[in-house]
Amino acid sequence: MGLIVQKFGGSSVADAERVFRVANRVVDTYDEGNDVVVVVSAQGDTTDDLIAKAQEINKNASKREMDVLLSAGEQISMSLLAMAIEKLGRPVVSLTGWQAGVNTDINYSKARIKRVVGERIHHELDKKKIVIVAGFQGINKFDDITTLGRGGSDTSAVAIAAALGADLCQIFTDVTGVYTTDPRIVPEARKLNEITYDEMLELASAGANVLHNRSVELAKKFNVNMEVLSSFEKVPGTIVKEENTVEKMLIRGIARDNDVARIALVNIDDTPGKAFQIFSILAKKKVNVDVILQSIGRDGSKDISFTVSSDDLETALNIINENNAIIGAEKVIHDENVSKVSVVGAGMTSNPGVAALMFEALYDAGINIQMISTSEIRVSVLIDRKDAEKAVKAIHDKFELNN
Amino acid sequence: MGLIVQKFGGSSVADAERVFRVANRVVDTYDEGNDVVVVVSAQGDTTDDLIAKAQEINKNASKREMDVLLSAGEQISMSLLAMAIEKLGRPVVSLTGWQAGVNTDINYSKARIKRVVGERIHHELDKKKIVIVAGFQGINKFDDITTLGRGGSDTSAVAIAAALGADLCQIFTDVTGVYTTDPRIVPEARKLNEITYDEMLELASAGANVLHNRSVELAKKFNVNMEVLSSFEKVPGTIVKEENTVEKMLIRGIARDNDVARIALVNIDDTPGKAFQIFSILAKKKVNVDVILQSIGRDGSKDISFTVSSDDLETALNIINENNAIIGAEKVIHDENVSKVSVVGAGMTSNPGVAALMFEALYDAGINIQMISTSEIRVSVLIDRKDAEKAVKAIHDKFELNN
Repeated sequence: MGLIVQKFGGSSVADAERVFRVANRVVDTYDEGNDVVVVVSAQGDTTDDLIAKAQEINKNASKREMDVLLSAGEQISMSLLAMAIEKLGRPVVSLTGWQAGVNTDINYSKARIKRVVGERIHHELDKKKIVIVAGFQGINKFDDITTLGRGGSDTSAVAIAAALGADLCQIFTDVTGVYTTDPRIVPEARKLNEITYDEMLELASAGANVLHNRSVELAKKFNVNMEVLSSFEKVPGTIVKEENTVEKMLIRGIARDNDVARIALVNIDDTPGKAFQIFSILAKKKVNVDVILQSIGRDGSKDISFTVSSDDLETALNIINENNAIIGAEKVIHDENVSKVSVVGAGMTSNPGVAALMFEALYDAGINIQMISTSEIRVSVLIDRKDAEKAVKAIHDKFELNN
Repeated sequence: MGLIVQKFGGSSVADAERVFRVANRVVDTYDEGNDVVVVVSAQGDTTDDLIAKAQEINKNASKREMDVLLSAGEQISMSLLAMAIEKLGRPVVSLTGWQAGVNTDINYSKARIKRVVGERIHHELDKKKIVIVAGFQGINKFDDITTLGRGGSDTSAVAIAAALGADLCQIFTDVTGVYTTDPRIVPEARKLNEITYDEMLELASAGANVLHNRSVELAKKFNVNMEVLSSFEKVPGTIVKEENTVEKMLIRGIARDNDVARIALVNIDDTPGKAFQIFSILAKKKVNVDVILQSIGRDGSKDISFTVSSDDLETALNIINENNAIIGAEKVIHDENVSKVSVVGAGMTSNPGVAALMFEALYDAGINIQMISTSEIRVSVLIDRKDAEKAVKAIHDKFELNN
């Protein structure tokens, strides 16, 4: 028994039948004697429908008014979920972002939560009510409605869990937890019982689309125990928590990311500050650069290769071509047929052999490595896209992750 | 130049094209140098769609959650209208009921406005913004969303106009104003340039469905000048205002109400308190009784006839039958084929001949009067429904209202 925050995404409440499935899940948790706060996203396609309505009227509508519009979506889903719980005979109340005290900064459409004033939620919990809170939305200091941007409802849930001192923040998804790798690639992939915040963050940025980074960062900061679990099957999921409470594993999981493209600037003058120039121009235009490789070329010149997300490739190439007077590359090459494969595990900090074992697996499989990048608990390689699934399988085998 | 509140109903903003028509209308008023506050209802069928969603989940959902759900409708329409005005290049901001300071009592689904705190609206008007406010909704002392019930957006508009000290509150409708009678019955019916609050109230309760009574009552209380005008044609409408500023007319208009049924209790004991007993039982069950007629019957007994709205007929009959042990009527008769025809005019207070002239018109047309009821500025008769249109024409002619 304790205080549990449960978050359900838009597809979990897409129609009346699913709303009742969620309601039953919530009521079960409540009936076990827990205080329950539920964070809910807008139903299925509501957000897309509202965006289409706006587009029909004004493709350049202000972000402020877009936030007013989109926040109506959760207001609808949260009241419907409350009505389903009323039907099941349990006391319930739904609260919008502002009613729940979700205070954000002033940035419309991608606001960040500054503080959750838990007073109203506590007041309702004291009355033994199940509390439904609209995810994805808050209020800024002007008393204007804001929305949190991608993955916003996960972040709402964690922020609320942190503010209330919840015992657990459950994120319900369409998978049963976090796996050692994508089970569609490796059928023997194993569901993890637990994972550290840092491992989860590395896996997420390496392409595992289970949790949004911001929510995990927030959970780490406030030490909120998260659980990733299925909205459909009632089985335990994966707990995301502090490192020292998690059983150590050399490798926790393997991620594959196809949303990546490689750009190579060939034969640049080897003068100091060259890399800084290139990457500061790209950063100004909001192009995120991931893996970077610099190699000495001929005649005191050098090559710089780096990866960007596939979406940013065209923008990045345009920026480079416009600025090549400054950059001075002899040739600009790009390649979209690449994938990034990463192994993640907190255990590798104290075990230098991980990278070597990974490279051995790739060598055995006859896969060529184009670029390498590492963090304390991650090794990533860039390889040909056609080899990506084979690489994931080979590495999964080599580290015996199916056991 | 002044401060103008404009209210547009759901059909006026039903799709993108209509939203732009409204936006242009608003911008025209703004460009003439006025401060403009726009009160808007939910788009076309939005409210019905949301009710259907709720019904699918819980036919007995709490009123609190219904209000949360329904208020999303105006949040959508107000932001879309704001986006259209942005597209037309004018500064604009949309505000929900709580943002606009519309404070109500605690009654969900039919809340009454207690006070409008105009601070935020004034603040936005000072910045020369067009201010869009969600109609039909407010906030109660628990910080919960409330809705105002039928005709709620008209009431929102008048309450906001009163709080801001607006020069005019324009209610846009699908007719060009208030007519001497329904032009579908009498093609020569004339649009009125002005009408007093009391005349408008009497006409509204006599069956003219132009403005909701509560909004007119509020306008009268706070002396807000209202204008009823067309959302489609740009022509002057009808001004509703204080009596002493309106040109006196003996008769302002004629209304016909088919939403009426007559019940007769035949041969009741003629003991004191009988009428009180009957009508207090009906009142307890929220059945509104309109015209009442009491006549002496045979042998010291009496008959009591009265009218109720068609919707309430069945309920009223059930109540009477259940309580006939107390009431003691020999027979209970009812008639649904009746209509109420009323003439309304502030001038009749000082002219006792109005009723006589009306009865003469009906006599000339060979129409039998079943019941009569009068107020200071209204005379109503109950007649056979098949005679109703003929009666309206005859009275319109007799009072020469086409001139």
